[in-house]
Amino acid sequence: MNKLLTASEVRQLCRQGKYQVPTPGVASGYVQANLVVLPQSVAFDFMLFCHRNPKPCPLLDVTEVGDPEPRMIAPGADLRSDLPRYHVFRYGELVEEVTDIKQLWRDDFVGFLIGCSFSFEAALLNTGIPVRHIEENKNVPMYKTSLNCMPAGVFSGPLVVSMRPLSPLDAIRAVQITSRFPKSHGAPVHLGDPNAIAIADINAPDFGDPVTIHEGEIPVFWACGVTTQTAIVQAKPEIAITHAPGHMFITDIKDE
Amino acid sequence: MNKLLTASEVRQLCRQGKYQVPTPGVASGYVQANLVVLPQSVAFDFMLFCHRNPKPCPLLDVTEVGDPEPRMIAPGADLRSDLPRYHVFRYGELVEEVTDIKQLWRDDFVGFLIGCSFSFEAALLNTGIPVRHIEENKNVPMYKTSLNCMPAGVFSGPLVVSMRPLSPLDAIRAVQITSRFPKSHGAPVHLGDPNAIAIADINAPDFGDPVTIHEGEIPVFWACGVTTQTAIVQAKPEIAITHAPGHMFITDIKDE
Repeated sequence: MNKLLTASEVRQLCRQGKYQVPTPGVASGYVQANLVVLPQSVAFDFMLFCHRNPKPCPLLDVTEVGDPEPRMIAPGADLRSDLPRYHVFRYGELVEEVTDIKQLWRDDFVGFLIGCSFSFEAALLNTGIPVRHIEENKNVPMYKTSLNCMPAGVFSGPLVVSMRPLSPLDAIRAVQITSRFPKSHGAPVHLGDPNAIAIADINAPDFGDPVTIHEGEIPVFWACGVTTQTAIVQAKPEIAITHAPGHMFITDIKDE
Repeated sequence: MNKLLTASEVRQLCRQGKYQVPTPGVASGYVQANLVVLPQSVAFDFMLFCHRNPKPCPLLDVTEVGDPEPRMIAPGADLRSDLPRYHVFRYGELVEEVTDIKQLWRDDFVGFLIGCSFSFEAALLNTGIPVRHIEENKNVPMYKTSLNCMPAGVFSGPLVVSMRPLSPLDAIRAVQITSRFPKSHGAPVHLGDPNAIAIADINAPDFGDPVTIHEGEIPVFWACGVTTQTAIVQAKPEIAITHAPGHMFITDIKDE
């Protein structure tokens, strides 16, 4: 049922307070996006951080200062109400989870919408490549790495990656497929030995859940949008608002 | 001789005041870039303008606030001295042409480096496709169009295009080739009837020189970096500094 909703229908339900759960699989075929809201004082620095680190932070749209409408990817939408849930950070600390941010919105706020992996996972599944955390009904495992992002202004931090275990042949095919999705993190950043990027224990992810790695499979690592949240925690801006994990903004753009 | 210089050798000669002429053909194989320097107060708006209009304004690099070094595309370079000539605009008016901007540089300046058409022209020539203004030793003809850029903050204005006349078969091949250069304006934005984009007289360009269009050729139009200068003239920022036309910044990035 939910799969068949359009993007604007889901946003309308969010706006009415009738949709407050995670969005994977919802409004099938529409690109979903990470949200980051920041005051103008650090907006240039953050945009520079995204430009310098396009694999974890592919910018889909950036709003005008004070304007809650992402006009390029969802005309008519309102970032203050059209996501199921939000996280509010003050000085880098998560202080609140809310279902709208109408009371918090300010004239100096800028909204950044950043691609997420849901689009490329749909393309993998459509090609018959298994996605383990979906098979096991878990959240994708994510890890901090020793790969540093290129800093920009007040923003810096490690690259965070998501991991999907694949057979070598599926890994090759997955490189080809995800290379076609530069706005959804693109090609993997690493495959094979987790220690090479300073992941000590593949079964103990920093975020999300561990998944089964079968005999003969290798872990394949993609740049992950959680990188932005790590950068926000490190930069400690006076205020920052993001989507709650898994509760994404649904755009009017189609997957392919 | 100049063709055989490296990018950093040309920049060094500029820094010493020994190179003050146009850069086409210089340091062959290196990507050349448009320069726009703006104060931080309008830097976010301008970056948003570039993000929303990637065909005329493909961002190659953006510097940290106050930092004259474009660390991503030319580590060690200095935007204050490493271009042959600069144009200084105050409140949207060109007030000065200078050979360095050391005295003008401020702690709140941000440098934007934007792709230019020299890279795709080299690729066209390498494939045997003629480039008329090079054959005729002229500047490329450029036109204001009725296509409006997506505005961002204080920046707005018409899309400016450059034109190269081609046979239909060469036009098709040129679409294929330039599509591979998204950071050098990418595929054409129009071909054929100039009136369709409100160009009244193809022989009277708004910038550059008219070129011969042979029987059976059609004009092919690409988005042009001069779009940024038109946007600066309209926005009237307190100060803006650009390269002088044709006197580009030479990056360490290779064409292909």
